[in-house]
Amino acid sequence: MGKQIKYGMVGGDVHAFIGEVHRKAINYDTRAQLVAGCFSDIPEYNAETGEAYGVEKDRVYENYVEMAEKESSRPDGIDFVSIVTPNFLHYEMAKTFLEKGINVVCEKPLCFEIEQAQELKNLAEKKNLLFAVTYTYGGYTMAKVMKEMISEGKIGNIVAINAEYAQDWLLDVLSPEKKDELKLSIWRTNPKYSGISNCVGDIGTHIEYFVSYVTGLKIKRLLATTNTYGHALDLNSNIILEYENGVNGAYWCSQVAAGKLNGLLVRIYGDKGSLEWDQHYPDYLVYTPKDGAPQTLSRGCGYIKEKAASFSRLPCGHPEGFYVAFANIYKNYITALIDKKAGKTPSTMDFPTVEDGYNGVRFVHAVIESAKNGSTWVEME
Amino acid sequence: MGKQIKYGMVGGDVHAFIGEVHRKAINYDTRAQLVAGCFSDIPEYNAETGEAYGVEKDRVYENYVEMAEKESSRPDGIDFVSIVTPNFLHYEMAKTFLEKGINVVCEKPLCFEIEQAQELKNLAEKKNLLFAVTYTYGGYTMAKVMKEMISEGKIGNIVAINAEYAQDWLLDVLSPEKKDELKLSIWRTNPKYSGISNCVGDIGTHIEYFVSYVTGLKIKRLLATTNTYGHALDLNSNIILEYENGVNGAYWCSQVAAGKLNGLLVRIYGDKGSLEWDQHYPDYLVYTPKDGAPQTLSRGCGYIKEKAASFSRLPCGHPEGFYVAFANIYKNYITALIDKKAGKTPSTMDFPTVEDGYNGVRFVHAVIESAKNGSTWVEME
Amino acid sequence: MGKQIKYGMVGGDVHAFIGEVHRKAINYDTRAQLVAGCFSDIPEYNAETGEAYGVEKDRVYENYVEMAEKESSRPDGIDFVSIVTPNFLHYEMAKTFLEKGINVVCEKPLCFEIEQAQELKNLAEKKNLLFAVTYTYGGYTMAKVMKEMISEGKIGNIVAINAEYAQDWLLDVLSPEKKDELKLSIWRTNPKYSGISNCVGDIGTHIEYFVSYVTGLKIKRLLATTNTYGHALDLNSNIILEYENGVNGAYWCSQVAAGKLNGLLVRIYGDKGSLEWDQHYPDYLVYTPKDGAPQTLSRGCGYIKEKAASFSRLPCGHPEGFYVAFANIYKNYITALIDKKAGKTPSTMDFPTVEDGYNGVRFVHAVIESAKNGSTWVEME
Amino acid sequence: MGKQIKYGMVGGDVHAFIGEVHRKAINYDTRAQLVAGCFSDIPEYNAETGEAYGVEKDRVYENYVEMAEKESSRPDGIDFVSIVTPNFLHYEMAKTFLEKGINVVCEKPLCFEIEQAQELKNLAEKKNLLFAVTYTYGGYTMAKVMKEMISEGKIGNIVAINAEYAQDWLLDVLSPEKKDELKLSIWRTNPKYSGISNCVGDIGTHIEYFVSYVTGLKIKRLLATTNTYGHALDLNSNIILEYENGVNGAYWCSQVAAGKLNGLLVRIYGDKGSLEWDQHYPDYLVYTPKDGAPQTLSRGCGYIKEKAASFSRLPCGHPEGFYVAFANIYKNYITALIDKKAGKTPSTMDFPTVEDGYNGVRFVHAVIESAKNGSTWVEME
Repeated sequence: MGKQIKYGMVGGDVHAFIGEVHRKAINYDTRAQLVAGCFSDIPEYNAETGEAYGVEKDRVYENYVEMAEKESSRPDGIDFVSIVTPNFLHYEMAKTFLEKGINVVCEKPLCFEIEQAQELKNLAEKKNLLFAVTYTYGGYTMAKVMKEMISEGKIGNIVAINAEYAQDWLLDVLSPEKKDELKLSIWRTNPKYSGISNCVGDIGTHIEYFVSYVTGLKIKRLLATTNTYGHALDLNSNIILEYENGVNGAYWCSQVAAGKLNGLLVRIYGDKGSLEWDQHYPDYLVYTPKDGAPQTLSRGCGYIKEKAASFSRLPCGHPEGFYVAFANIYKNYITALIDKKAGKTPSTMDFPTVEDGYNGVRFVHAVIESAKNGSTWVEME
Repeated sequence: MGKQIKYGMVGGDVHAFIGEVHRKAINYDTRAQLVAGCFSDIPEYNAETGEAYGVEKDRVYENYVEMAEKESSRPDGIDFVSIVTPNFLHYEMAKTFLEKGINVVCEKPLCFEIEQAQELKNLAEKKNLLFAVTYTYGGYTMAKVMKEMISEGKIGNIVAINAEYAQDWLLDVLSPEKKDELKLSIWRTNPKYSGISNCVGDIGTHIEYFVSYVTGLKIKRLLATTNTYGHALDLNSNIILEYENGVNGAYWCSQVAAGKLNGLLVRIYGDKGSLEWDQHYPDYLVYTPKDGAPQTLSRGCGYIKEKAASFSRLPCGHPEGFYVAFANIYKNYITALIDKKAGKTPSTMDFPTVEDGYNGVRFVHAVIESAKNGSTWVEME
Repeated sequence: MGKQIKYGMVGGDVHAFIGEVHRKAINYDTRAQLVAGCFSDIPEYNAETGEAYGVEKDRVYENYVEMAEKESSRPDGIDFVSIVTPNFLHYEMAKTFLEKGINVVCEKPLCFEIEQAQELKNLAEKKNLLFAVTYTYGGYTMAKVMKEMISEGKIGNIVAINAEYAQDWLLDVLSPEKKDELKLSIWRTNPKYSGISNCVGDIGTHIEYFVSYVTGLKIKRLLATTNTYGHALDLNSNIILEYENGVNGAYWCSQVAAGKLNGLLVRIYGDKGSLEWDQHYPDYLVYTPKDGAPQTLSRGCGYIKEKAASFSRLPCGHPEGFYVAFANIYKNYITALIDKKAGKTPSTMDFPTVEDGYNGVRFVHAVIESAKNGSTWVEME
Repeated sequence: MGKQIKYGMVGGDVHAFIGEVHRKAINYDTRAQLVAGCFSDIPEYNAETGEAYGVEKDRVYENYVEMAEKESSRPDGIDFVSIVTPNFLHYEMAKTFLEKGINVVCEKPLCFEIEQAQELKNLAEKKNLLFAVTYTYGGYTMAKVMKEMISEGKIGNIVAINAEYAQDWLLDVLSPEKKDELKLSIWRTNPKYSGISNCVGDIGTHIEYFVSYVTGLKIKRLLATTNTYGHALDLNSNIILEYENGVNGAYWCSQVAAGKLNGLLVRIYGDKGSLEWDQHYPDYLVYTPKDGAPQTLSRGCGYIKEKAASFSRLPCGHPEGFYVAFANIYKNYITALIDKKAGKTPSTMDFPTVEDGYNGVRFVHAVIESAKNGSTWVEME
């Protein structure tokens, strides 16, 4: 006996951080089971991870190409693969699994180059495969409530947007005397591993996805500055945007902002009210109706509408946290997969897709291009 | 192949709330597997839950007595049982499993009567069994940091304590016109199901455990008022305490405090500083050194000492939430169990034990007794 | 030429803190002028203060008895006197001015003994004089909004109260090594200068007044603990109250709570909602309607009802602060005085009166008595 | 007898808002007296205001030109004039008083055109007159502490700046159905009364002054978008800046941001730490040292250095508010004036000067110019 959906994982041995998050998130609902993997290029780590999760030994693979081949030819092969390797490997791996007809969940960024992103998007469409890109933050219940309230007109027409994602964990990069301690973080500012961008690619793209998700607005054009502080890649960036409705917004992302931990803060202003959400306190959403007082809406409370609030897993006042945001993305992805396997149209597509991943890559390129060209506008449409 | 530790569950079918929390929490670490259960007295729910978790059919039991018997006689029987049934069933169930030599994790309150608590405590000792009572909130990393900082003298000698646990979900009980909607909550104010206390037993005891856990202080005596607002059991209570060091504290618990969701707020004042923790934002801890500014310590940051901070599972700024608090309790319990199975002294006993459960029952009785006697002091030592 | 109302001051030379606050507060409205004073028993300070405020030399008095006599016999004598001397002098001074037929504003506490308070109350009534006691915090606009909302039934029937006033400025008293630096604060713990209580008399009484002001509830009885930590007078106190409506509340006051600056926090819970006000952010009031989200009401905003909000002097978002709370008390007192001088019934009596001062003294005595008697109930009615 | 400094006021009758603020602010210290004025072009208001402040009738003038002439020829003429009229009148009035040799305090904006600003600056220099422009927010004690901490290197070299000033009081302008109610605010969007800019000129310039004040950084160049939403002038603006040290910053100002009252929020990031200040809670300043926890510094507390903290007028925890910020500006201006009258070099020039006013006008023009030119860079050096 077993669970409905079988999945595999590439990367994410038990000593890595993000693989564990994915596995725990998938475990939140009882419908998918880890049955195959290529968790690490260190053989012991690979074996250890398979064992910890009860994966049969012959499905713990030495390399992902072999895994894609063998799993795609088994009658009981995996329904989807989760790719949680370093960013520079995403493109080749995703392509390989898609080509073998396997549905894909891939960590963000989807890849580094627009052409690659376009190719993956086309491939998924051609093969009719479900492809999710794990932009975590749209998975929070209150992000969904935010999206729902905006689409219902609670804040009217959007007139201004201000969003930021600030961290401080690369501050040491600015202190020359700390150079020796930088082994872990320095790859972030190395183009080989990070593509054309560090900070915008790593966290700026989360702003772009989140705003797009909750507002539904497309970016018409943008201009930007980036700051490298003498390094190869950006550590800080200011961006001004014009959306398709003619309204402007401003994004700021930084990894050198002392005191900021994981500060994704999104504020949307309309002519009938505003909404403000801070990732540090994800169960809350501040809603101010025009001419009224700010209200702190709380996940799980009765006054939030049922549809989006149905994602809530705990009573109000019991913090859900980061794992649950991931779990909600997988929840919908797996529902869609079950529908698809049953020959039905997916009953939900409320998860970040390869299309979102493609938009993210285009966004990063536009920001870097503008900054290179003296902060001139780059058209996005 | 499988995991090191096998466990069973009594109560907690997939339609219930708290059972899911326990199972997800146990799943956070990859060492224990659900192999037996008596999840519901509704046969379909019972079967459904077993199936969802891959429990073999002959280990999905119709009643817990049978389960205790059969599991204790199997060579591969469960290592521990989690009891997550309604409160009034805890005593009989825990006793049954202990008598069969099975280690127990039991939801709080341990039971309703002091004699019962004493009996369970004695039984666990006599049988040399590990018995945890899931007082959730001590499982949060920052609760452990708080405990560590106090024991290291960071706030000096404790001079005052102020703690509260306020909710508003029983407010409807005060509105006679809402009587029909009260089916779910009304058992809370019925002595048959709640013992001698509703609010103090349900949440007041969390204050008592948490303060005791972080400070190590024993209560010498206490006095109290309770408010029933015309119902059989308390919905609100004010308590003044005297600790063994001669210092006083005040606790307030309420389930009729409009706007309070799950408001466990604990503030400890010493002659060298203070610490303040709010369950709504569990990743943070406000530390004010005497003559200094308040500092908002954040789980996951480098400036927190290693020992307690090692419970951290996510980088700073990524909210861990309620499930993780539970997971941390199980983490230590299972570590202790593995040690015990290997014939070793448990390397950690950092989880709430039957002793804590016993103290909780005594606390509830003392509060209710004081309130009945006109708020006179009740000695606890 | 000149302002309608003339006033004198006893105490409060330009080197003292609270006298300046009173004078600035009176200056907020342009109706009263300082024309006489006995500001200090240091002759130079006395003269200096008179000069700074343009008081004529012959109305700068050497002692308050002479001042009361001379001012009461002048045709252009002062309309009221503000007494801002150390607490232990209030009684004699207030009595002297009342006997001479002069209206009085007195800093709190009114005096130390209940009999003295009763005497001052009777004297003011007999002489038909307006007597204000400057319990500052009811002067804040949002305190008035709170009072208005409660009286309009916005939170329904009150079911619980939790209030506190915590500071940390006497923490040094607990550190023996700091004894030499304690010159300024040590009189606070000396009965000669503070009467029977330090902390309860100094700040606990502010809680009592504020709760009484906003709720209109009378205290039926109370019980308390106090902590002296080896000193003569209390530095910390926990109090449980029963109000005339049978509901309980809890107050906590402390001057040894590290990190608390001037922490008057008042939370009133009703069966239809709650209100929460923190003196540190006096322009805001958190209102939670039952079954709704917490709303942060802001002074100056259009959605607050006109009556209480008319005290607002600045647009919303422009912090008013402590001086304005004082100014609002004087505003109403002076309006009442102008009405009285014109032979009319005062159009407002919305300021703390000698009756409130008398209740404050009774409250302090009840707390101290309960603490002495082993925390037994002391009846207040 | 009287006070050392005599002043007059143009505009600011007792029915106007900002004139009262200036007068109360000046009254906080006891060194200046209002002796002349041209408060309103409504004769009754003019007279009423003079009377309320005890100004002699012959010094209540019908027009400001006459006032400048007569006061400059009296031996006891005013030492300075405060100009608190609508913005479009500032230039002519300031010029007139300067020409007559009278020191000037002028509300911001100094004027509308760069040439006018230059002219006023030159005139003040030539005549050796003290000219303050009341950019309020630098007057807060914690703004001064912020400046001092930055100059002392507490946050190291500045690497990023993010500042905003958001309000919502012009939201009605976006709702066509509210057109009739807009009498009061509509002049804000009329170029005749607001010059080339509404929002940037009104509040954007406060950001520019405040950042410049606390950091000492000059703007090298900037680019911007503005939004008029169909009106003549801007209601919202996003600005990216490059400072002389090569670092970038972002400013956002808006008067259509629902829920924002008077939201000046300034965040300065350095390679050794950061500082964050919110005008809504002006007594607090969040300081995060690199690798440490955020500390909430509080005005009045002992751990703040003496120099800047000496501006504190109340003990910690007692909110000072908006009036005090103004009072602090006047405090230093009047100190400088007293020094100047005594033939000494001013002992402080810590107030916003005509130079700051001139920079403000240039800033507004640069923003509007960039927005008009498709958001291209405008050089400021």
